[in-house]
Amino acid sequence: MKYTKDLSWKKGITVKDIVDQYSSVGYQSTEISRASDLITKMKKEGAKIYLSFTSNMVTSGLRGFFAQIIKLKMADVICTTVGSIEEDIMKSKGEKFILGSFRADDQELYENGHNRVGNILITNETYSNFEAQMQGYLLELYKIKKVWSVTDLLKEIGLKLNDENSFLYQAAKNNVSVFCPAITDGSLGFHLFLFKQDHPDFFVDVIEDFKQIIFSTTHDEKKGIIALGGGVSKHHVILTTLINGGADYALYMTTASPRSGSLSGATTDEAKSWGKIKDDADAVTVVGDVTITFPLAMIKSLEDLSDEGILKEF
Amino acid sequence: MKYTKDLSWKKGITVKDIVDQYSSVGYQSTEISRASDLITKMKKEGAKIYLSFTSNMVTSGLRGFFAQIIKLKMADVICTTVGSIEEDIMKSKGEKFILGSFRADDQELYENGHNRVGNILITNETYSNFEAQMQGYLLELYKIKKVWSVTDLLKEIGLKLNDENSFLYQAAKNNVSVFCPAITDGSLGFHLFLFKQDHPDFFVDVIEDFKQIIFSTTHDEKKGIIALGGGVSKHHVILTTLINGGADYALYMTTASPRSGSLSGATTDEAKSWGKIKDDADAVTVVGDVTITFPLAMIKSLEDLSDEGILKEF
Amino acid sequence: MKYTKDLSWKKGITVKDIVDQYSSVGYQSTEISRASDLITKMKKEGAKIYLSFTSNMVTSGLRGFFAQIIKLKMADVICTTVGSIEEDIMKSKGEKFILGSFRADDQELYENGHNRVGNILITNETYSNFEAQMQGYLLELYKIKKVWSVTDLLKEIGLKLNDENSFLYQAAKNNVSVFCPAITDGSLGFHLFLFKQDHPDFFVDVIEDFKQIIFSTTHDEKKGIIALGGGVSKHHVILTTLINGGADYALYMTTASPRSGSLSGATTDEAKSWGKIKDDADAVTVVGDVTITFPLAMIKSLEDLSDEGILKEF
Amino acid sequence: MKYTKDLSWKKGITVKDIVDQYSSVGYQSTEISRASDLITKMKKEGAKIYLSFTSNMVTSGLRGFFAQIIKLKMADVICTTVGSIEEDIMKSKGEKFILGSFRADDQELYENGHNRVGNILITNETYSNFEAQMQGYLLELYKIKKVWSVTDLLKEIGLKLNDENSFLYQAAKNNVSVFCPAITDGSLGFHLFLFKQDHPDFFVDVIEDFKQIIFSTTHDEKKGIIALGGGVSKHHVILTTLINGGADYALYMTTASPRSGSLSGATTDEAKSWGKIKDDADAVTVVGDVTITFPLAMIKSLEDLSDEGILKEF
Repeated sequence: MKYTKDLSWKKGITVKDIVDQYSSVGYQSTEISRASDLITKMKKEGAKIYLSFTSNMVTSGLRGFFAQIIKLKMADVICTTVGSIEEDIMKSKGEKFILGSFRADDQELYENGHNRVGNILITNETYSNFEAQMQGYLLELYKIKKVWSVTDLLKEIGLKLNDENSFLYQAAKNNVSVFCPAITDGSLGFHLFLFKQDHPDFFVDVIEDFKQIIFSTTHDEKKGIIALGGGVSKHHVILTTLINGGADYALYMTTASPRSGSLSGATTDEAKSWGKIKDDADAVTVVGDVTITFPLAMIKSLEDLSDEGILKEF
Repeated sequence: MKYTKDLSWKKGITVKDIVDQYSSVGYQSTEISRASDLITKMKKEGAKIYLSFTSNMVTSGLRGFFAQIIKLKMADVICTTVGSIEEDIMKSKGEKFILGSFRADDQELYENGHNRVGNILITNETYSNFEAQMQGYLLELYKIKKVWSVTDLLKEIGLKLNDENSFLYQAAKNNVSVFCPAITDGSLGFHLFLFKQDHPDFFVDVIEDFKQIIFSTTHDEKKGIIALGGGVSKHHVILTTLINGGADYALYMTTASPRSGSLSGATTDEAKSWGKIKDDADAVTVVGDVTITFPLAMIKSLEDLSDEGILKEF
Repeated sequence: MKYTKDLSWKKGITVKDIVDQYSSVGYQSTEISRASDLITKMKKEGAKIYLSFTSNMVTSGLRGFFAQIIKLKMADVICTTVGSIEEDIMKSKGEKFILGSFRADDQELYENGHNRVGNILITNETYSNFEAQMQGYLLELYKIKKVWSVTDLLKEIGLKLNDENSFLYQAAKNNVSVFCPAITDGSLGFHLFLFKQDHPDFFVDVIEDFKQIIFSTTHDEKKGIIALGGGVSKHHVILTTLINGGADYALYMTTASPRSGSLSGATTDEAKSWGKIKDDADAVTVVGDVTITFPLAMIKSLEDLSDEGILKEF
Repeated sequence: MKYTKDLSWKKGITVKDIVDQYSSVGYQSTEISRASDLITKMKKEGAKIYLSFTSNMVTSGLRGFFAQIIKLKMADVICTTVGSIEEDIMKSKGEKFILGSFRADDQELYENGHNRVGNILITNETYSNFEAQMQGYLLELYKIKKVWSVTDLLKEIGLKLNDENSFLYQAAKNNVSVFCPAITDGSLGFHLFLFKQDHPDFFVDVIEDFKQIIFSTTHDEKKGIIALGGGVSKHHVILTTLINGGADYALYMTTASPRSGSLSGATTDEAKSWGKIKDDADAVTVVGDVTITFPLAMIKSLEDLSDEGILKEF
């Protein structure tokens, strides 16, 4: 039996130490510690790791952390929404996102060409620079072939970015596929539309993407899910593992509540009823802002894996 | 200046009366009343109404209410996730969804072939029946043409359903387009994949969908958004109106919090910074479970519109 | 087995009808319907009903509804926080609370003497009027005796109010005790302090209050809890029933999450581990804004009880 | 202007480093960093610091951290609910609290005498041991005098505990007053009642407590609030500073939403409308589980203060 222990500070305390202490504090701090142990276990037992995240996380400073995780071989397949793609490219091109306030005057922001995402601001200029960039990329891709799966298209773009902090670049370089099940749901959708106006034989083949993601693993392979936030990116990695017999490990990190039946708020328990994760799977749900909880859980795991000599490189 | 008023019950009180009283109660009950007035205003001022909802709402009994709303000409464009499509078809074929418990034993449910969505259960049998159905539909569609936009495909399927309570059927019958930006993110994705294995020239053209949704309105037309829940369906209708100059009216109903920067929790204020809704637009955000809040707000509006002789039919 | 049913509107639909439909919709709407049935059952089986609410609900228009419920014999013991007492008195004296906005400019409000509670505003003037009132009351009470339990003190004040919409008045008139475990935690605390400066032998005896609340029922009597919101008022009625063998019926309505271990977010399941509610007790937890959920559940119950001729008067 | 920066891990990263990186990540991680800077500022500018917390936090391993904070002179006045008092005493007497699961079988827990608080369990035995303890303490106190303010009573008890990890002990030893505005709302209430049965002249004087807390500071003194969680303990420290002209610094950490008008979810903005915190005060609201967020913010501040040689001892 495990008991609560009094948390205490000592000068210079590391993240590893604090997450270790969290294991005996209770509530969500204990769940973070469990999350960390679960990530470590997934890795040590050779699971294929599916990492999903929503685009607001790429708006935030987690973007470079995702790139680092891919570089460290801690994620094998990525699934996200199109805003992540757009903003990763923007940042790779040197665009800067401003730290603002949740209680900003949104009317004033609008007049100044500032678009708010929580307490982060993106300028209109950043969006127009992105537009110019994309038309160039699409033309280059079109010269190669006319019909693209989204994941192949993102790999080509990723290779062009040449930014260590870009998750698209690191994914492309490390043979990690990036899936995006709703590729048109963003300004990229508009750019694809514009491009197709002049190049009507240009196609994005989403069924091919689905084929690629379900063939990304097998029933026999061990599978782990790290789902950050909800929405289609979470659902898509769960669906993929379900089709392949269910996940062996699942970590959900979310702020959504399970009380309205949304998939975003669905817990790992609910997932068991579907066979989405195996009945005896290790599963942890952490409730809280992912910008806080994910770095803590992942860093503790990286430290442990590094201490054990398992981490590939750093 | 408006003041709080004491709510009181009188025998036989109607929904119209209670929402009217809510207007002076405060907190979210007042926001429901404001939501209702906003829906009425959208309709009276001839706005094109974009209604988005997530698939868990079609799992619930809201499904038939969406169908009724479309029939009553209260929604002009629908945007949703693929689970909605699947479950609307299932229910049209007579499948029944079981009312269960949030605290069910998920392991036991799994063994009994029951898949849990909050406090609702779907059986495995329902899913297998659906699979057989879909392959038939796809074959019929394929005989017509090889390349489909999602919205055209959903219209064809909708027409086949012949169920007054089906939102796909009512949408098809009433010339209301249904958009689904991540069509492969569900068992339908798997059925599309299976079908394409044998019919490699079958294509789903998502860029065509994007074209159709952005051409569904203009800068000049008044535009209203009713976004129930978050995710890509919410984002997609916002994006559509943004590209066309921003919405004139926006109602967001959600359980998500704005504090993590997610689009699901983003308020109508944040939307103003983007020009997603016009600076002088009428905008209301209601926080709470949509199965409760939406019927109240919409019914109050239907009653008011009916009293004024504006509602088309009932 | 019960199944989801499609919700539908018909002209003139009543609250009773909609909550009846909610029973088959799923998620929290179904929980509201269960809540309603539970209230009806408590009443029909002769349970002593403990109703707790937080002071923000009295700030809102629920205040008069609480008074009506007491008048209708639907609550036998009340437990609340001191803000409820203060604001019930203010409203009885004709003070008006303004309906404002969640996104008000709080600096501007301050300069105008407006104090914000969510989207409701209370003026500084209302508070000063209240102060004058209270000193008068305390002097009258002091003339009767020097040592008061809070509940006795509130009964005396209640009788003076003479306002049908005052819950203190209705409670006093209908022999319903009002408990307030933290009587000094508000401006009333300051008035008690000021009064005691000049009358040092004036005492508030909170242990006497505790005695009165635990003697308000017995092990043998059936006991029901309706806890609206969290905090000490929720905890206090749970504690009272626990000491008397646990509640037979428990309804919790809250917006708080169970994930941080707070009592405010604690579910009726957690309560069972404590024996706070009996293992075989009927128990329902509804998540959502109480200004919306409570009127719906209670009104449906009032209608049903009235139809069956059980309701005392209306 | 400040911009988002990509978060990155380097081996052995400290809590100080990660919170420093959080400052540029966005969303709640940035708010944690702001919270930390605010605590540092309060301390450096010599503010009297009011720390409030709810009892579930003392159930958790934060209990010893609160003791350490008091020892380090980072809190000058404490306000909490009675469960904190009880559980601090239990733990000082060697009682152990079990780490369990949020999804435990509560019926089974009940049968085994385990009482659940989120994912923490307290045994019935712990409660009975506590009862015996309390009757002894009360008798000793009674021999000293008959009428006690709660804060004086808690100081006497604190001195007896002799446990470095007890917040009551550290508070008593360091002349930090502990206030508890609803002293009867827990098993301690029952013990006070039992004791008073045999000693009817024993009184707890809550108006005296109120006097002591409002005289704990002045209009001239700089005042800072650190409110962890909501309820009466949060409200009481806000009220105290309001009566003394408003707080100069305020940090609210909570999981509650501002959308239902509860004080628990009320933001520091709302507080400004009341003058609860000064219009030009530094104020930060962090949304998230306090067991995670508070140690991060406080430890970063302790590290900074220690580096600057300001921290008294460690």
